[in-house]
Amino acid sequence: MSAKLTILGAGSALPTRTNFPSSQILELRDKQYMIDCGEGTQIRIRQMGLKISRLGHIFISHLHGDHCLGLIGLISSFGMLNRTADLYIHGPIGISSLFESHINFFCDNLPFKVIFEEFNTNKHQLIFEDKTMEVYSIPLKHRVPCSGFIFKEKPKERHILREMIDFYEVPLSQINLIKRGADFTAQDGVIIPNSRLTTDADKSISYAYCSDTAYSEKIIKWIEDVDLLYHEATFAESEKIRAKSTMHSTAAQAATIALKAKVSKLIIGHFSARYNNQRVLLNEAKAIFENTILGEDMQTYEF
Amino acid sequence: MSAKLTILGAGSALPTRTNFPSSQILELRDKQYMIDCGEGTQIRIRQMGLKISRLGHIFISHLHGDHCLGLIGLISSFGMLNRTADLYIHGPIGISSLFESHINFFCDNLPFKVIFEEFNTNKHQLIFEDKTMEVYSIPLKHRVPCSGFIFKEKPKERHILREMIDFYEVPLSQINLIKRGADFTAQDGVIIPNSRLTTDADKSISYAYCSDTAYSEKIIKWIEDVDLLYHEATFAESEKIRAKSTMHSTAAQAATIALKAKVSKLIIGHFSARYNNQRVLLNEAKAIFENTILGEDMQTYEF
Repeated sequence: MSAKLTILGAGSALPTRTNFPSSQILELRDKQYMIDCGEGTQIRIRQMGLKISRLGHIFISHLHGDHCLGLIGLISSFGMLNRTADLYIHGPIGISSLFESHINFFCDNLPFKVIFEEFNTNKHQLIFEDKTMEVYSIPLKHRVPCSGFIFKEKPKERHILREMIDFYEVPLSQINLIKRGADFTAQDGVIIPNSRLTTDADKSISYAYCSDTAYSEKIIKWIEDVDLLYHEATFAESEKIRAKSTMHSTAAQAATIALKAKVSKLIIGHFSARYNNQRVLLNEAKAIFENTILGEDMQTYEF
Repeated sequence: MSAKLTILGAGSALPTRTNFPSSQILELRDKQYMIDCGEGTQIRIRQMGLKISRLGHIFISHLHGDHCLGLIGLISSFGMLNRTADLYIHGPIGISSLFESHINFFCDNLPFKVIFEEFNTNKHQLIFEDKTMEVYSIPLKHRVPCSGFIFKEKPKERHILREMIDFYEVPLSQINLIKRGADFTAQDGVIIPNSRLTTDADKSISYAYCSDTAYSEKIIKWIEDVDLLYHEATFAESEKIRAKSTMHSTAAQAATIALKAKVSKLIIGHFSARYNNQRVLLNEAKAIFENTILGEDMQTYEF
């Protein structure tokens, strides 16, 4: 089963004709997870005609406006559309007090609860898990406390070899344990190794989101081998000094991280409004890491 | 000289493929005035490539999210674009305390001041004037304190008849007084009436914005004879009961107000997201007031 990433906004602080501020939706096994929620997020959702009833958790990287100013409008609209499921917002310490008064003012009589789960952006830790997914924070290097996220699909069950199960007369009660890797002890005491009863599970999917951040090799160990990396690439190499002073990355730096972390695919985004033609960013990244694509608003990427 | 009204968003609370929430810019004699600032206002501005350096005053009708949630993003972007001119925000009592903490948090180190001017939405009063314009509040009938606005261009100067000025040897020092309507007393004591020295001034332009509001004939006296009226028309006649309970207007009600107020032209807007085809609203309005047009996002209307 593949995952889908829908980019709602691949822009940075100043929106452009083509790019809204940061927001995206990761979809896996019928669940949706939103990452960042810049101004206009709900507008992009409506423009795309997306159904987001399966969205239960929003992850906010940091408290700059272009990553979270769409929250109140989105929550308010959820209320008008009679959402009833609780909505969890995971974000840096302080996010709750920052938004609670506006939620109370603008979103009165919500038919669901908004629950803030704050985490320390300085730590790499498990911040969320459900049946499908584990989400870890990734400490990033930015002007304010900022965290990336790595979404790791939980290990899937091994595939049962039906004919071997029949041959060894494995009782139904043992099947789930065997799917999770257990050996089977037959009635005569003989141990049948799991490898005779099953084949490998499908690969679990992993996705890392790293925005906003200056170039930081510290993150490599956490995002190694992910199937897809979204890394900010605010500037071209010609603005390398500006990238450093504003604690952003160049496209080449994003690609260098992708290369060193041996990821399968890189999407670059969070483009400065100065680039009418973002090809320069793509070309600079591809020169270092070939399997790079340009993040585009309202595009869905399967992986 | 004509005025220009640019609609940035003609939608209501739920955005659609075509409509952002409420915001518009009125432009007259090189000055710009923003009315309402829903989520995505700065995005529409960038999409249209509008220059808004001459925007000094924003008028907020009421504190529902779809009329003011774009303020923080807009102010923040003004900061990044190095605006230096003070920005005045005129709005209902409470707007300052509602937004000040977010301005302080999201828009640090602004190179200009944001000055809130609060007014009582229950009163029809002059809330702003500059050399060009007077702006009056219009008490509206909505679920929260809400005000429309009437923009009245100040009376223009009368046109001097050059040959009469020469004939009566009017000194330069008297010209401005005569342009404003004064008679001229010649050296021999004879009074030359102003009507011999001038012709009528160009007509002053007036624009009224009435959104959000239930049908209210009380407003007619304040908006009589305006050149252009923007009146909300959230619903069609089939939703008349819903319009009443949510304190909005139908298209026919908007047109009835236009007719009774003898305005020159009506633009309807603030459409409910349920109308994929807004022609039904236009047709219902035109049946009552022929000179009605449908407000459209990113359109500029000269009048």
